[in-house]
Amino acid sequence: MSKAGDNEGGVSDWRGSSKQPDGAAAGEKVLSKLSTVSARPGWTKVSCPCCVLERVEPLVLVKLKDKVSPETKRWLLRLIGAPQKDGGASLLAHPGEDASGDVIILSAPRCTLLRATEELGLCKTYRNGEMEAFSYSDRDNFKDSDNMEAFLTVAERQFIVKYELEGLRAKQDLRVPGLPDSFTLHHRDNIWQKLSSAGVLVDMFPLHFPDKLKNLSEAWYSGNQLVQPLDAVNEYFGSSVAFYFSFLDFYTWFLLPPAILGLFIAYFSGEVKREMAESVSVSKVIVGIHDDSEPLVSGHMLQAVFSMLWSTVFMELWKRRSSTLSYRWGTLQLAERFADPRPGFHGNLGVNPVTGRVEPLFPDWQRDLRMGLVSIPVVGLFLGLVVLGMLCFYWGEAQMQQLHKNWDSVLTQALLYMPSVLHIVYTNMLSTVYKRVAQSLTEYENHREESAFENHLTAKVLVFTFFNYFAVLFHIAFFKQDVPLLRRRLASLLIISQLVNQVTEVVIPFLVDRFISAPNRAESEDDSHQDKFRNQWTLPPFPGLFAEYIELLVQFGYLSLFSCVFPLTAVLLLLNNLTEIRSDAYKICRLFRKPFFPPVAGMGVWQIAFEVLSFVSVVSNCWLLLLSPRLQQLCKEGGMSSTDVLLVAVMVEHLLIIVKFIIATLIPDEPDWMRKKREHIEYRSMKALRQQKLQNEES
Amino acid sequence: MSKAGDNEGGVSDWRGSSKQPDGAAAGEKVLSKLSTVSARPGWTKVSCPCCVLERVEPLVLVKLKDKVSPETKRWLLRLIGAPQKDGGASLLAHPGEDASGDVIILSAPRCTLLRATEELGLCKTYRNGEMEAFSYSDRDNFKDSDNMEAFLTVAERQFIVKYELEGLRAKQDLRVPGLPDSFTLHHRDNIWQKLSSAGVLVDMFPLHFPDKLKNLSEAWYSGNQLVQPLDAVNEYFGSSVAFYFSFLDFYTWFLLPPAILGLFIAYFSGEVKREMAESVSVSKVIVGIHDDSEPLVSGHMLQAVFSMLWSTVFMELWKRRSSTLSYRWGTLQLAERFADPRPGFHGNLGVNPVTGRVEPLFPDWQRDLRMGLVSIPVVGLFLGLVVLGMLCFYWGEAQMQQLHKNWDSVLTQALLYMPSVLHIVYTNMLSTVYKRVAQSLTEYENHREESAFENHLTAKVLVFTFFNYFAVLFHIAFFKQDVPLLRRRLASLLIISQLVNQVTEVVIPFLVDRFISAPNRAESEDDSHQDKFRNQWTLPPFPGLFAEYIELLVQFGYLSLFSCVFPLTAVLLLLNNLTEIRSDAYKICRLFRKPFFPPVAGMGVWQIAFEVLSFVSVVSNCWLLLLSPRLQQLCKEGGMSSTDVLLVAVMVEHLLIIVKFIIATLIPDEPDWMRKKREHIEYRSMKALRQQKLQNEES
Repeated sequence: MSKAGDNEGGVSDWRGSSKQPDGAAAGEKVLSKLSTVSARPGWTKVSCPCCVLERVEPLVLVKLKDKVSPETKRWLLRLIGAPQKDGGASLLAHPGEDASGDVIILSAPRCTLLRATEELGLCKTYRNGEMEAFSYSDRDNFKDSDNMEAFLTVAERQFIVKYELEGLRAKQDLRVPGLPDSFTLHHRDNIWQKLSSAGVLVDMFPLHFPDKLKNLSEAWYSGNQLVQPLDAVNEYFGSSVAFYFSFLDFYTWFLLPPAILGLFIAYFSGEVKREMAESVSVSKVIVGIHDDSEPLVSGHMLQAVFSMLWSTVFMELWKRRSSTLSYRWGTLQLAERFADPRPGFHGNLGVNPVTGRVEPLFPDWQRDLRMGLVSIPVVGLFLGLVVLGMLCFYWGEAQMQQLHKNWDSVLTQALLYMPSVLHIVYTNMLSTVYKRVAQSLTEYENHREESAFENHLTAKVLVFTFFNYFAVLFHIAFFKQDVPLLRRRLASLLIISQLVNQVTEVVIPFLVDRFISAPNRAESEDDSHQDKFRNQWTLPPFPGLFAEYIELLVQFGYLSLFSCVFPLTAVLLLLNNLTEIRSDAYKICRLFRKPFFPPVAGMGVWQIAFEVLSFVSVVSNCWLLLLSPRLQQLCKEGGMSSTDVLLVAVMVEHLLIIVKFIIATLIPDEPDWMRKKREHIEYRSMKALRQQKLQNEES
Repeated sequence: MSKAGDNEGGVSDWRGSSKQPDGAAAGEKVLSKLSTVSARPGWTKVSCPCCVLERVEPLVLVKLKDKVSPETKRWLLRLIGAPQKDGGASLLAHPGEDASGDVIILSAPRCTLLRATEELGLCKTYRNGEMEAFSYSDRDNFKDSDNMEAFLTVAERQFIVKYELEGLRAKQDLRVPGLPDSFTLHHRDNIWQKLSSAGVLVDMFPLHFPDKLKNLSEAWYSGNQLVQPLDAVNEYFGSSVAFYFSFLDFYTWFLLPPAILGLFIAYFSGEVKREMAESVSVSKVIVGIHDDSEPLVSGHMLQAVFSMLWSTVFMELWKRRSSTLSYRWGTLQLAERFADPRPGFHGNLGVNPVTGRVEPLFPDWQRDLRMGLVSIPVVGLFLGLVVLGMLCFYWGEAQMQQLHKNWDSVLTQALLYMPSVLHIVYTNMLSTVYKRVAQSLTEYENHREESAFENHLTAKVLVFTFFNYFAVLFHIAFFKQDVPLLRRRLASLLIISQLVNQVTEVVIPFLVDRFISAPNRAESEDDSHQDKFRNQWTLPPFPGLFAEYIELLVQFGYLSLFSCVFPLTAVLLLLNNLTEIRSDAYKICRLFRKPFFPPVAGMGVWQIAFEVLSFVSVVSNCWLLLLSPRLQQLCKEGGMSSTDVLLVAVMVEHLLIIVKFIIATLIPDEPDWMRKKREHIEYRSMKALRQQKLQNEES
């Protein structure tokens, strides 16, 4: 990077030309002196000559506390604009309307974007048309590397701004002007984190691009598209979101075979009406004696075996698709391991043995110890509390019913609802507490990479949530061993929970947005840009993809774990997902602030969750088939004792698990052409390493 | 490599100076002209000036057919000595006593060794003390790269000679002098393979180094060493053998905990005498009603659960040890994928997409198809034949006993043995046929890498052999459900088969060698070197490590699958292995010709076999515990039905499998320092690749 002082160009007005000269070249001052120089309105100046742009694109909005002192804001603007070697972020900042406003609007110059692209390990199109890991020094050979808007996606540019800001570390001990003396930044402190916890920074979010958003919406959910514009989603929202929608899409298409099979079985076994009748009559207390009077056991078994093998094939093919998408979106070789640790990471300063850089180090065994001795027991404890709550609920219900039988008054009638109400309150409280605990536990585990942190956090919440959802069903299936009740419960859950989901997720936010929020922030054409940006802040923040993924996982659980008791599951899920795709797309485009998402190479821990579920499904389905009274009756007629039947079931289960393992091993996780590309890269790296060592010798 | 013609130096006499000039510079002639030039006695000349050595080390002996024509031999010597660019092997050859003898003795010059070291991807000590993948162009920075005897191990030098010979391919169509016209080498034919199948080449084996062998024997098995000289074994026999002995060593030490536990349980449950009595009284037909009258069920269970978890911990720690050894022996980054395909590989010529070289290509899907549609069904068929044989045996035995009961004569008495005899004959025939079939199947699968070929062949034979060994035990355990019979069978197998093994493997060869073969080849000090070398040929060829590994695997099977019925298994195995280490060492050093072994990074497919067995053991142990009449009685007293007991057993089994999975996931497969080294190499490769692309641009 050229020295900041060499360049006198700056950007002074909104979207203005950057060529306008600016005498007060503030950028060249080192960080410690920044607080003494006064700020100008308009964009801060670019710190290297190659980055001088015709047009500055506002990417990210930072919301400061309401009454931030102008010195602090000026210091912050200076910090953001200072070159990286001086401890700054090398970004472009705009103070909004004036120096006393509470927003900063950020953009990034070309050099910063390109360097961060290399640091993140993103792949871009090389001049030979292949996707190659981007290298700053080799930038001229990459396609479009002079035009950032074509070279990087919107999501990448915005993420890089966040990445640079969150990577800011104090180069020495210093005081921040305008803040109390008690607030001091120490050497290597993470500036962004400290300022956030001090309340100076309230929020930071990427800005929407109205034109692009409009085009995306039209291609995504306005019409009756069968295919989602996944590349456009990746361009606008980033690969995390694009992977979620790709998976949803892939999953929905893959639901077709089990749905057709389910319809077929239901139709031919004449079960359609009965199932429908049952699912409607959930609340009625009909003891399910007649339920299994005439099912086609062979149909159920077919469905169960099919869905067990289907789930493995599905997951294996998804892995192939996932790696293809990852290649296409340039996230196949993300170099998080080799980049700086995530902001929250702490440890003793030392030399990283892998990269040779000085950074905080934290031994792996200590992390393992913390996970083994603290995290796992605590998670186990909470799972135990869920079970305890369920047992108390069943006990309470039995007690209340006894009471009602004995006394039979309005009071006892009302008391009948007590256990359910208490259980719901208990469960909700528990899950709120658990989420906080999971966050602290994962912080305590001190993961080096952001993705590792996210995956561990997700895994913790996921296990708990899943357990919460399925504890009752498992209880019915394995302890009560009551298939008719299970079937009713499943049908009602499928129908009701999906309806509730759609309503709470989309309809309510839509109504709120349309009739309550929107009138308050009615935009007019002559609003200033700042006002428009500020308006985006009034939208609620996007709650993350956890809720979306867990919904799919729970669905997948219903389908794979209990499909044999309710053959129409796949049909219902298929119908649900066709609307889900559209409603999720609408939601993320219109109802929330645009979220930051890091580039990712796949679904992370969710993929493992789906795979685990697919194996658990074998156990569950074999067990449910075994419970079927019809099967037991048939076997008795065939002269087998219940122990023999159980033995056969266990053998079938083991066999199916082995078959699933073999299928999973046989289907490669990446397509052939990808493997060849990967091996080619490995080969070239090997050669290059040898070459380089030699050259280092010679020089 | 310098042009062969530039160098007039050659080696003319045995271990003579190579400086002696030699006018008939034959090496520079291209291959097609070789047949016309006459050969000299003594070593062929070195093809590049840097390789001229003071002393030539005889490494490998090639045995030709008895009456090989001198022209053919001369052609062969010429071919071996010709530089690689002319289609030769760039090796040094010596024609033995004279040009009409039937042996060729080979050595390798420095350049050939170093180039092959790079091709094989061996790691050597860099000047900074780290193990780095060797690079020919960077050779001067590697320790000892000027002294081949210190730089490469004996085994590596000998393997490289074999590697070069087997990689010889005809550069154009040509006739071999002295062979019938019908024998023509076509373009790209593998010369060594063609000559072997034509009977010109009878054998090829590495030569022993008597001094080194003596030192190795002394350090290995002569005294009462507790520690094996594994590095010396790797140096002399190569990493394949060294890995086998490392595993044997590691396994033997790991047998201590279960052995101590077994002794403890056996002693406290007073079972020692009974077990001993039983194992001796195998042949007596005592119906085992009293057998389970007083066992400590808790002891058995403890043993079973312990051995199930032990086996996982053992395998995981072995993996760590294995990767450490692989780093130490420089085989961690073997580049077989990037090297030339193995000699037997065929396919259409094309450009390898990974390395960019022209070589035969064979699509993976076609190989997968062949495996799926041919290999797997054929292997299944043979496994079916094993089962069929076993069923026929049981049926025949029942018939004969019936016959004996009805007639009771000497004839029927003799006929009683018929089924056993027939079964043994059948099994042996089957396994002989199967071995050939497995070889052809694996050839048919057309694997590109030698290691893949070996692994697939081993896997096929392994499955069959293992099935053969265990079919009867499984039959007793799962169908007859006769624990006492199983216990007797196991005890007798353990004791008798180990005795038989030790006798057939060591005592008989030793006796044969000492009293029959040795007098015939009594060496005297004044024998010529050639005679000494020729004597080595009279030793039988080493039968390979398959028999050794399968013995360990079967042992491990006895221990992990059925340990809960016979707690002293580990003790017996421990005793056996302590002698096994010594007898195996003696065997490979003294009783056989020295074998060729490629450098390997681990145990290959054997590791998978041990791991699979460790998981199967959970199923088997849970089942055996369930069978215990004592347990069933206890449960009945506790008011559980047999179905309930079965359910509990299944749950315990699932739980144990999950625990094993978690243990296997939690223990990393490589030590922490290795992971860091590996990541460091990846990081440097990534950097180097970027660097190189840039330099390619600039140049």
